[in-house]
Amino acid sequence: MNNLGIVKRNIDRADRAAVEKLAGFGIATIHEAMGRVGLMKPTMRPIYPGARLCGTAVTVLLHPGDNWMMHVAAEQIQPGDVVVAAISAECTDGFFGDLLATSFRARGAVGLVIDAGVRDVRDLTEMGFPVFSKCISAKGTIKATLGSVNIPVVCAGALVNPGDVVAADDDGVVVVPAAVAAQAAEAAAAREANEASKRARLAAGELGLDMYDMRGALAKAGLKYID
Amino acid sequence: MNNLGIVKRNIDRADRAAVEKLAGFGIATIHEAMGRVGLMKPTMRPIYPGARLCGTAVTVLLHPGDNWMMHVAAEQIQPGDVVVAAISAECTDGFFGDLLATSFRARGAVGLVIDAGVRDVRDLTEMGFPVFSKCISAKGTIKATLGSVNIPVVCAGALVNPGDVVAADDDGVVVVPAAVAAQAAEAAAAREANEASKRARLAAGELGLDMYDMRGALAKAGLKYID
Amino acid sequence: MNNLGIVKRNIDRADRAAVEKLAGFGIATIHEAMGRVGLMKPTMRPIYPGARLCGTAVTVLLHPGDNWMMHVAAEQIQPGDVVVAAISAECTDGFFGDLLATSFRARGAVGLVIDAGVRDVRDLTEMGFPVFSKCISAKGTIKATLGSVNIPVVCAGALVNPGDVVAADDDGVVVVPAAVAAQAAEAAAAREANEASKRARLAAGELGLDMYDMRGALAKAGLKYID
Amino acid sequence: MNNLGIVKRNIDRADRAAVEKLAGFGIATIHEAMGRVGLMKPTMRPIYPGARLCGTAVTVLLHPGDNWMMHVAAEQIQPGDVVVAAISAECTDGFFGDLLATSFRARGAVGLVIDAGVRDVRDLTEMGFPVFSKCISAKGTIKATLGSVNIPVVCAGALVNPGDVVAADDDGVVVVPAAVAAQAAEAAAAREANEASKRARLAAGELGLDMYDMRGALAKAGLKYID
Amino acid sequence: MNNLGIVKRNIDRADRAAVEKLAGFGIATIHEAMGRVGLMKPTMRPIYPGARLCGTAVTVLLHPGDNWMMHVAAEQIQPGDVVVAAISAECTDGFFGDLLATSFRARGAVGLVIDAGVRDVRDLTEMGFPVFSKCISAKGTIKATLGSVNIPVVCAGALVNPGDVVAADDDGVVVVPAAVAAQAAEAAAAREANEASKRARLAAGELGLDMYDMRGALAKAGLKYID
Amino acid sequence: MNNLGIVKRNIDRADRAAVEKLAGFGIATIHEAMGRVGLMKPTMRPIYPGARLCGTAVTVLLHPGDNWMMHVAAEQIQPGDVVVAAISAECTDGFFGDLLATSFRARGAVGLVIDAGVRDVRDLTEMGFPVFSKCISAKGTIKATLGSVNIPVVCAGALVNPGDVVAADDDGVVVVPAAVAAQAAEAAAAREANEASKRARLAAGELGLDMYDMRGALAKAGLKYID
Repeated sequence: MNNLGIVKRNIDRADRAAVEKLAGFGIATIHEAMGRVGLMKPTMRPIYPGARLCGTAVTVLLHPGDNWMMHVAAEQIQPGDVVVAAISAECTDGFFGDLLATSFRARGAVGLVIDAGVRDVRDLTEMGFPVFSKCISAKGTIKATLGSVNIPVVCAGALVNPGDVVAADDDGVVVVPAAVAAQAAEAAAAREANEASKRARLAAGELGLDMYDMRGALAKAGLKYID
Repeated sequence: MNNLGIVKRNIDRADRAAVEKLAGFGIATIHEAMGRVGLMKPTMRPIYPGARLCGTAVTVLLHPGDNWMMHVAAEQIQPGDVVVAAISAECTDGFFGDLLATSFRARGAVGLVIDAGVRDVRDLTEMGFPVFSKCISAKGTIKATLGSVNIPVVCAGALVNPGDVVAADDDGVVVVPAAVAAQAAEAAAAREANEASKRARLAAGELGLDMYDMRGALAKAGLKYID
Repeated sequence: MNNLGIVKRNIDRADRAAVEKLAGFGIATIHEAMGRVGLMKPTMRPIYPGARLCGTAVTVLLHPGDNWMMHVAAEQIQPGDVVVAAISAECTDGFFGDLLATSFRARGAVGLVIDAGVRDVRDLTEMGFPVFSKCISAKGTIKATLGSVNIPVVCAGALVNPGDVVAADDDGVVVVPAAVAAQAAEAAAAREANEASKRARLAAGELGLDMYDMRGALAKAGLKYID
Repeated sequence: MNNLGIVKRNIDRADRAAVEKLAGFGIATIHEAMGRVGLMKPTMRPIYPGARLCGTAVTVLLHPGDNWMMHVAAEQIQPGDVVVAAISAECTDGFFGDLLATSFRARGAVGLVIDAGVRDVRDLTEMGFPVFSKCISAKGTIKATLGSVNIPVVCAGALVNPGDVVAADDDGVVVVPAAVAAQAAEAAAAREANEASKRARLAAGELGLDMYDMRGALAKAGLKYID
Repeated sequence: MNNLGIVKRNIDRADRAAVEKLAGFGIATIHEAMGRVGLMKPTMRPIYPGARLCGTAVTVLLHPGDNWMMHVAAEQIQPGDVVVAAISAECTDGFFGDLLATSFRARGAVGLVIDAGVRDVRDLTEMGFPVFSKCISAKGTIKATLGSVNIPVVCAGALVNPGDVVAADDDGVVVVPAAVAAQAAEAAAAREANEASKRARLAAGELGLDMYDMRGALAKAGLKYID
Repeated sequence: MNNLGIVKRNIDRADRAAVEKLAGFGIATIHEAMGRVGLMKPTMRPIYPGARLCGTAVTVLLHPGDNWMMHVAAEQIQPGDVVVAAISAECTDGFFGDLLATSFRARGAVGLVIDAGVRDVRDLTEMGFPVFSKCISAKGTIKATLGSVNIPVVCAGALVNPGDVVAADDDGVVVVPAAVAAQAAEAAAAREANEASKRARLAAGELGLDMYDMRGALAKAGLKYID
């Protein structure tokens, strides 16, 4: 009835070219290009300033206080993957540290997104291994309960299917379904091109009120200027 | 690329008999029967003591401060449905009050689950209209932005597809995928039957240590008794 | 430079008739009638179900862990007043219990709104003395530092001037400036009258989509129905 | 080096007469009588209104997501005990439900205090089994990791030694070390006697300013009355 | 009755010389000089280390999920202003990014204080545009609802009137009413001068107990030294 | 009955050699070596990146909004000590700034751990004085109420006895009882030696599944691989 205790080996990863193209955009741009869907909660923060990542999701569902499945997930990693870890209930434990990071990197992982805690932050920072997490905690975990790997998971409020593009920077973490990755990359590029000219006009002192032609709508809505 | 601005009219609702059977069990029992998946976050609480509901999900995705789609959802309600409202970002506004409850009930809804706030709690309590929400707030909302109805949503950390069974009581809110509703109901029944005899033995003073035969495993794990 | 250590004795209380009229409406109705301003944060909750109050504000600014000014405030209470207590920084201590409630009531107070904790909840409930607070805590406070009484305060995110109307029920706490109390009461009455007919139509099965004539605007915004 | 995996069988329980005497006072009174120490965080709330308990502590240290030791603790319960459960890291899981409550009651336990979640709230309420917890959650736990029973634990910010008196009501949970239980009960009685006369004077309209003779100190501190 | 939909064009800004003087002090010093009033909640944090600002407030009241008024506010900015944005209810959306920062800077703004989220943090950091916010979020906002500009607002628990001095550094955000800006600057200077000599004495090993002459008061309060 | 208003002058500090040895390990390593006990809550964070400390605890119990005892604690500091400050109830005030840091350093303190706020963060960072705190706040405190120095305290969920080793880095804060400091240092060294070889094997691409020999246990638990 449920899919606990399952490891899916063959997953359809998003098109590599689309992933690489998306890697060039900021998270806010991608999120706008997606129509404002797929953003994780703002509680997900980089463990060091400037951390960023973009890759295809290997998903893992863990239980509070138990990181056994992280080792199972490691074997499913392919170069360019991001491990996305969801927990079946709220937990702040440190499920991940420098040993797992060494293993994940050896398999080709480009980062980790986890709705819980991690530890060995100093080592991870020196390794330059980007992690986005809910918190930091030295508290370790046990290895006793089955979860699953490469099933759909809800991580920090966002649905992630294995193979989806997951991108993260200082602004947060966004999920782009594999099927629309190329389309999202195009939309992001269009949006960014559009922003460059706007930026120049605003920098020159033009007001958004005029550039976006808002004065009429504001007046119609009843905005009143007083002295 | 995304499914904003979409209303799906025909959805496959879980089998009515299974829904009715599930309605007879507590949430903890159903959650165990499901293999411990599908539970919403414990921040979701009933607005009055004793509230409980069990029905098929009509889902709605709203934006912060905007409840326009609630009216669109109302038209899609069929008798026995529960409206499940997700918000695209954290918001505590009161998206729902006694007028919408009156409308939902007229359409046959048996309750609301919303990852945000509601208001008119006194009226809703007098109506006996069960609501599970993140908070209570008198703050109203506007009607300006499109969301969607009957798309898959993530509500309070749980994935809900339209037509899934959603059940809630004092212990929380659980989602049972439509396809496994009958199976879950059976598993819940089996679990409950099993618990009755355990309860009697425990009430008679037998210890869980003996009833579950735990002493050997505890000793093997290294448990030491001292005086 | 600041107004700490000040007690203002003569304050302009809102018109008594307006206060009594406002007491008849729910908080959501008053808040809407006010144009959606003046609501305290939804963290402010009644200490017992069904608690409600409506009166004129005697304000007091306290410091973390110190309730000295509560006794100073007591002397300024007139019949029909609500004491509104703000704290100069976050604090969960219990600043108020049954002794102060006895004193406040003897002076004519109709309740307390405090952005901190209170204690003796059982006694307060038995007394039927309505309190809206951020939390409940048995932790007492000292009497060592001056605050002020009847200065403007920010309580749970809302500005309260002495003499303003403060109303609270299950939906939250709202502040109505004294100068507009009568006008707000009229607007609330108009709103409520309007809602009665809407409720009847919705109960009869009419949809908000039709009653509010939303279909055109939704279509124009791009809403699509699929099967 | 640490005391994990330990069960202490013989503990010194606080004097029964002192426990019974303490049971007659409110938590705020006991906390004041103790000199304002030993209070748990205000996040600890009763699972039903009016719940209260007073007994001697059987302590248990659990790990996130694992309630194995609860069964070990059950065997150590004697009539009049309260089980006090601490978790080695933040967790909202439901570690306790009606089966364990049945077992605990059969052993003579008078309640549970737990810095995590519980479930089967409806059943526990019907049983009248008082529980004070951080939250409510249907999420179950596993039985895989050793903790300890009857070691000193930190529960919701308070140190609890086995045998200490633990008392709880609507105002919170307080811990009274076994060695001072009798002394605390006396101090609480003295305090309560003292409060009765104060209450009467305040009810008659006397101000705390006068009853506590505060006016001089306030003036000396610089309090200014303005009109 | 309310002041929604209002833009006040002429506001009285605090004296420029006082603003410049205040810019030289730390927030803790200014807050002490003010008599410990006017501090925003500690949830308000700089988006990059070392960010600091000091200027005159242009205030804006926004609604959850809607940043329309930010563009209206832009036109009211004069060189040296800080935009202070309050939201009518809790919201974590990203109301502000690099385009608005470009526009605000072109108008002469020296920073932003907002009780909600912002995005494009990397760009804002590179621009050196100081922002103090409640959180960071890539989630964008719509432009549909009127708020107001240059009305009194409550931002993160502090009352801000247009023209007030708003100063922020690593320690938080403080508001100095325009009318007392010069006086506050003088008090801050006096305080800082006073601290320099204290720092030297403490660095030389003198104890605060002696420097502040506390031993008598501590003994009188009952402090006991034991070995 | 309680130990408020007490200063213990002679405390047994952990062995200096053990403290120095422990200073060489990360917090996660020490916590594991301790058997996963003694960790403070993950809400305790360094006030600047890279802050770390290791020393013997001088403990102090403060009350909300009152830092009087910090000055009493200063006199008890010996070279190599860490001041550990607990508050008798939740408080975010800034109890500590650069003046106290100057005094503490002059006495030989190597840092501060406080379950509340601190201020003057810029100065503390320039001084290189490591502080781990719950938050940052410019809000100052008064000096009116007795607490105690060098009594056992609960700080951020962990029991700290005076003289215990307290160590902190980016991963959190851990407490090592004085009596087991040498033993913990040895266990940490053993653990770290063990990790070096594991790291090399994982870096070479070996999987944790094989290195820890997990495949059999996973299969026995029912893990299923699907394609």
